[in-house]
Amino acid sequence: MSASVIAYDRGMGRWEPNARGRLERAALELYLERGYEQTTVTEIASRAGLTQRTFFRHFADKCEVLFAGSNWLQELVVSTLTGAPDSAAPIDAVCAALQAAGAAIQEGGDRPRQRQAVIDANPDLQERELIKLARIAAAIAGALRERGVADPAASLTAEAGVAVFKIAFGRWISQDGGGADLPELIKASFEELKTVTAGG
Amino acid sequence: MSASVIAYDRGMGRWEPNARGRLERAALELYLERGYEQTTVTEIASRAGLTQRTFFRHFADKCEVLFAGSNWLQELVVSTLTGAPDSAAPIDAVCAALQAAGAAIQEGGDRPRQRQAVIDANPDLQERELIKLARIAAAIAGALRERGVADPAASLTAEAGVAVFKIAFGRWISQDGGGADLPELIKASFEELKTVTAGG
Repeated sequence: MSASVIAYDRGMGRWEPNARGRLERAALELYLERGYEQTTVTEIASRAGLTQRTFFRHFADKCEVLFAGSNWLQELVVSTLTGAPDSAAPIDAVCAALQAAGAAIQEGGDRPRQRQAVIDANPDLQERELIKLARIAAAIAGALRERGVADPAASLTAEAGVAVFKIAFGRWISQDGGGADLPELIKASFEELKTVTAGG
Repeated sequence: MSASVIAYDRGMGRWEPNARGRLERAALELYLERGYEQTTVTEIASRAGLTQRTFFRHFADKCEVLFAGSNWLQELVVSTLTGAPDSAAPIDAVCAALQAAGAAIQEGGDRPRQRQAVIDANPDLQERELIKLARIAAAIAGALRERGVADPAASLTAEAGVAVFKIAFGRWISQDGGGADLPELIKASFEELKTVTAGG
């Protein structure tokens, strides 16, 4: 993001009139500029033109800025899965649920890529990201069991689904913005999984 | 493990005449008895009838006792994969490599189950276990690329393989010792993955 765009955003407060969004954007900027470890909550609040107190009304700590979206994403995946037609094969229901997550992530514009760059630069955050993905896999397996899918099929479909999602997300992140569509990449990666597991 | 068996092992030093094995067994006992966090290196060395100095000749810290096997396991997986016939489909080569790992784990007798119980009781260790699995997946993907498998097939096969392994291992751990054969469970889980990804 160029300095002028940042100045524009901060000056006008137009794209993100809400405190939460401003704090999130300020945090990502600072994490990228000076590193996650080196950034303080005071600096984030100051960059967003808000107080520390406002920061703590929205986030427990500077880590939560990066991971607050995880629960929401997990709920979206689970509710999409729960709402899938009974006739849908588990793998297809999981694919559709993860495509819904992909569409939501994509709506974040530059932020998912910025967030990933911050995470890639910090081993502790990478661990937390792995835990997040493991939790989403467990939630998907639980939702599949609710749909009557027995284990190990439920766990396998969930773990395989999250593996596919991770790879599709990585492909999407590694490409320059614009071209690639994340839900389409997710769908394509599920197809690829079918091919590789069939021994192709 | 019963107290008498422990006393027998420690008294006779017969099953594990080597210091490393004695330290590992003593550590697992203590982690299970009083918790990983509460156990000190001094206590581990003392339980094994050895000195702290000997402990540190074998392990950097009390965490490494649990994870020292990971590199070795990863090397086994990669070398098995590298040695697979050129004609083998990537998914089958990965399955065989993980079965080799499973066979090696199974040779550890009670220890893999004890180790898992310690890890299940400690969130930090669970994180480290996730990181270990992510590294193994990355190593498998690398070995597949060496075999000429292009991405995303290499990453997908690797991630799916590790997901399958994780589930097979969980099934093996959750069963009472004796009956189940880990390499067979791994093979069966790969077959199950083929079924679920085919939409069955």
